[in-house]
Amino acid sequence: MPQYTAPLRDINFVLKEVLNSDKHFASLASREEVSEDLVDAILSEGAKFSENVLSPLNQIGDEQGCTWSESGVKTPEGFKEAYSQYAEGGWPSMTANPEFGGQGLPNSLGLVVSEMVGSACWSWGMYTGLSQSAARLLEVYANEALQQTYLPKMTDGTWGGTMCLTEPHCGSDLGLLRTKAEANADGSYKVSGTKIFISGGEHDMMENIIHLVLARVDGAPSGTKGISLFVVPKFLPDENGDVGERNSVHCGSIEHKMGIKAQATCVMNFDSAKGFLVGEENRGLNAMFHMMNSARLGTAVQGLAAGEASFQGALAYARERLQMRSLSGPKNPDGPADPLIVHADVRRMLLTQKAFAEGSRAFIYWVAQLVDTFYFSGDEEERRSAEELSELLTPIAKAFVTETGLESANYGMQVFGGHGFISEWGMEQIVRDLRISTLYEGTTGIQALDLLGRKVMGSGGKQLMVFTKLIHQFCKEQSDKPGMAPFVEKLAALNTEWGEVTGKIGEKAMNNADEVGAASVDYLMYSGYISLAYMWARMASIALDGDADDAFLKAKLQTAQFYYQRLLPRTESHKQAMLNGADSIMAMPEEIFAF
Amino acid sequence: MPQYTAPLRDINFVLKEVLNSDKHFASLASREEVSEDLVDAILSEGAKFSENVLSPLNQIGDEQGCTWSESGVKTPEGFKEAYSQYAEGGWPSMTANPEFGGQGLPNSLGLVVSEMVGSACWSWGMYTGLSQSAARLLEVYANEALQQTYLPKMTDGTWGGTMCLTEPHCGSDLGLLRTKAEANADGSYKVSGTKIFISGGEHDMMENIIHLVLARVDGAPSGTKGISLFVVPKFLPDENGDVGERNSVHCGSIEHKMGIKAQATCVMNFDSAKGFLVGEENRGLNAMFHMMNSARLGTAVQGLAAGEASFQGALAYARERLQMRSLSGPKNPDGPADPLIVHADVRRMLLTQKAFAEGSRAFIYWVAQLVDTFYFSGDEEERRSAEELSELLTPIAKAFVTETGLESANYGMQVFGGHGFISEWGMEQIVRDLRISTLYEGTTGIQALDLLGRKVMGSGGKQLMVFTKLIHQFCKEQSDKPGMAPFVEKLAALNTEWGEVTGKIGEKAMNNADEVGAASVDYLMYSGYISLAYMWARMASIALDGDADDAFLKAKLQTAQFYYQRLLPRTESHKQAMLNGADSIMAMPEEIFAF
Repeated sequence: MPQYTAPLRDINFVLKEVLNSDKHFASLASREEVSEDLVDAILSEGAKFSENVLSPLNQIGDEQGCTWSESGVKTPEGFKEAYSQYAEGGWPSMTANPEFGGQGLPNSLGLVVSEMVGSACWSWGMYTGLSQSAARLLEVYANEALQQTYLPKMTDGTWGGTMCLTEPHCGSDLGLLRTKAEANADGSYKVSGTKIFISGGEHDMMENIIHLVLARVDGAPSGTKGISLFVVPKFLPDENGDVGERNSVHCGSIEHKMGIKAQATCVMNFDSAKGFLVGEENRGLNAMFHMMNSARLGTAVQGLAAGEASFQGALAYARERLQMRSLSGPKNPDGPADPLIVHADVRRMLLTQKAFAEGSRAFIYWVAQLVDTFYFSGDEEERRSAEELSELLTPIAKAFVTETGLESANYGMQVFGGHGFISEWGMEQIVRDLRISTLYEGTTGIQALDLLGRKVMGSGGKQLMVFTKLIHQFCKEQSDKPGMAPFVEKLAALNTEWGEVTGKIGEKAMNNADEVGAASVDYLMYSGYISLAYMWARMASIALDGDADDAFLKAKLQTAQFYYQRLLPRTESHKQAMLNGADSIMAMPEEIFAF
Repeated sequence: MPQYTAPLRDINFVLKEVLNSDKHFASLASREEVSEDLVDAILSEGAKFSENVLSPLNQIGDEQGCTWSESGVKTPEGFKEAYSQYAEGGWPSMTANPEFGGQGLPNSLGLVVSEMVGSACWSWGMYTGLSQSAARLLEVYANEALQQTYLPKMTDGTWGGTMCLTEPHCGSDLGLLRTKAEANADGSYKVSGTKIFISGGEHDMMENIIHLVLARVDGAPSGTKGISLFVVPKFLPDENGDVGERNSVHCGSIEHKMGIKAQATCVMNFDSAKGFLVGEENRGLNAMFHMMNSARLGTAVQGLAAGEASFQGALAYARERLQMRSLSGPKNPDGPADPLIVHADVRRMLLTQKAFAEGSRAFIYWVAQLVDTFYFSGDEEERRSAEELSELLTPIAKAFVTETGLESANYGMQVFGGHGFISEWGMEQIVRDLRISTLYEGTTGIQALDLLGRKVMGSGGKQLMVFTKLIHQFCKEQSDKPGMAPFVEKLAALNTEWGEVTGKIGEKAMNNADEVGAASVDYLMYSGYISLAYMWARMASIALDGDADDAFLKAKLQTAQFYYQRLLPRTESHKQAMLNGADSIMAMPEEIFAF
């Protein structure tokens, strides 16, 4: 099992040097002040907790998994204790609203902690991450009575939460959902139906679980326009706000799955369970989509977190394991063979992991800052532009970072040779745990349609131009800076091409709507490579400003070069494939796909 | 769990129409005659056995895995019974030498059966596949006494076999191996050491297990020049050739791994076990490499077999599962939603699976014919050219088909959305089982070095030219054929480019040997896409000759178009990446990869 060490030097570099977090935090008018000391304390304590408490649980969690019985779900050894420690440390309240006991810190800072937690033990982190997402939703959409009832205990971590969307016959297509809600005389509702794939739907880590459930009120319109959102607690709060009567929502079973085995993925049966409407009737999807955006960015973190963990494991092995001689002559002449890291192809894999992890870190942290700005900046203009940009970039971050994270995690196994396939080493668990990330919270295909169909085409290209203008501006500013030419030239050319490619697809799509779907995933990956190229150019520029002898900055610059020379050329294949259009995809009649 | 149906129409198309198997079989002077009736009987019986006996064992095998105890390894329920049926059916002897009871049928026909067996249950197929490989090696390298002792029972399937190469400290680098052999007075040897990752090293399916073990005779040179090959049976044959005394070779444990859990991956301890030299002392690697080539082609089959199984599962689901409406208007207006298969991106994934499976099938079957020709043709000239070509193509087939098979298997999961992650559906097992294929029998990196370093550069480009000339000839012949232009133009251009790219890398490599390693995997993938383009053009040409109303041929042509338009553009990125050279890969000092 690879020992996780939080990459604090890089985290600090991205936050403070690339993204000027001090200035950013100061711009968030409606959040608490954030001193640099506080940031440092959070990072260092978060690192310690992840390294020392969570990382050792990761393999145990995979081996033991969760256990279902009539009386509930048991999480693996140590999970509950780690959570108590986490809650005592005040972590669940970090980004919560001070009105309900929160610390009011920026979400972008919470996301950094979630990266460290996620690298150490993703399955564990999901219990608390989803609970915090549920609380965030109630902070925005619930009425005051509901907020006063639920938020204090969700904020201090005593109670957890879930999102209940999927049903057996509907995943991406929520319009089909059948769970129903019937109004009671007292203003509450009776909620009945079956939800599946409910992460943390039942477990023993928290005192109560507050389910946010999408359901259809009797007589509501069909499709997505008739969906409402309800709070359905596992235990109904008593008159003191403590755990009271057991509600009739139960976990029917948990799924056997490829990975994240320590995370209870539950079938939840609602049998006239008592529920409370959040917001207005038939407006449930709006609230849920709001939450989904942050859940999507949170899922992007999974690609980063796993990629980082896999890189650390592979790097350590590549430096230790002796096998074969370098093609350019022995590098460890006194040993029986050279370490793996001398071999060019092993380096290619490690550098790919490094370039994706560090590039994705900068990208995700930046998008998280944009989301902060949208929610909490005092400047209306800044807010709007941050909203547009973060909406454009969220599907890219979610799908691109998880897809490339999966590539990276597979390289991590590959560096280990046959040992990568053996569970003991922990490298294959990283792949299995990460594999869900391109599926849940909207598959890669769904993100790609959101990006190209809804955001780019839906805005007539305007939402894309917010970003391409920014890149254009950056390239102009940097064009004369010594050392930046190889980055700026390539990036500027791709940035122009991005607009042209988008225009061509738009034209085709006027005649055939399937052109959008046919191009979508190639378009998303193409956009992802350019987005990371922008982040790598920004990082390279800052590295060039620093001490030329600083090994960290030197590695940063070399990784940027590697990214531009060995990974960025992938845009070319995606471009050609999508410009070749939909015909070869749509032509085949369904019935002749196989014989 | 997807129900496997052997794709007999496509198998027949490839064998008979694309590869003219009747003519090919007739050309194998030193093999038994093969009538078309016999081929049909083998295909149809192999299909039935795979579909009805093996396919139902696949999920059980994954759930139960193998169980180790002091007394041996127990395989999952039904494995042993299926093997008895297989052996009674005469399958183990299919391609074996008639001198020892074999049917003397061409290996290329055996490989077709191994595809069907492999799609149905790869873990099961490994027990018999590796046993047959071991027997093939003894047919060529062992002396007559050893052959008479072991081959009759290995041929009829009573006894199995293994290859014991890897040790804890050496995988790819066999020169480091430490297992030693000491000569006894009677001409036998005492073999001592520990071998790991021994597939089928211990199990309960066969009466005896004949280990082929690499070891170093006392006083032998160090490195690869001092390695000898031994037969070390689990039970020493008694004077009647039956199972006698237990030899001191034991399975110390079995590995817990990501997949192929029903296949016992064993740690084997040899404790002065009695062994018998195969061939000459210190020449063990030659024999083993000979066997490895066929094992590599056999591993390529895993990519094909799993890709096919995953495609079948995904296609069935995509036709049934209703979710969302088509972007170009409802296709199932009376239902609550459209089937997944109407969505362009789902089609893109399915067609990618189909294009890789069918293209790889044609490619692998063709390489297998070349190997037949090399071994069994009466024409010396043909034999030499088949040898050169099959040696060039084997690493491409092994690495490209397993890598793209893995992409395909991941698409199979992706089509299922979240359900793809759930074990019950069987789609994630396909990914886990297949993941080993890019690692064992030489990782993708090792195959790539073999291709670019040993074969292409090692022959000064000549070995590549055998293939590019063939493609050139094909393009010339086909250039005027109606309908072939889009294929031939692209293929001819890429074929020329292939030579140019090779030349450029060769030039760079003269100054820096690491350029070979740095380019190798991109070069292999690039070569793989062109190789499959050649196969797809051959198939398109034959489809164009057939009945235009034949739906199978129509689908074949449309898949060829899809391959050329949506997958073949990937050559461009591989080309750019490898031509950007080794500098950005080799520059970073080892100690600054991470902080």
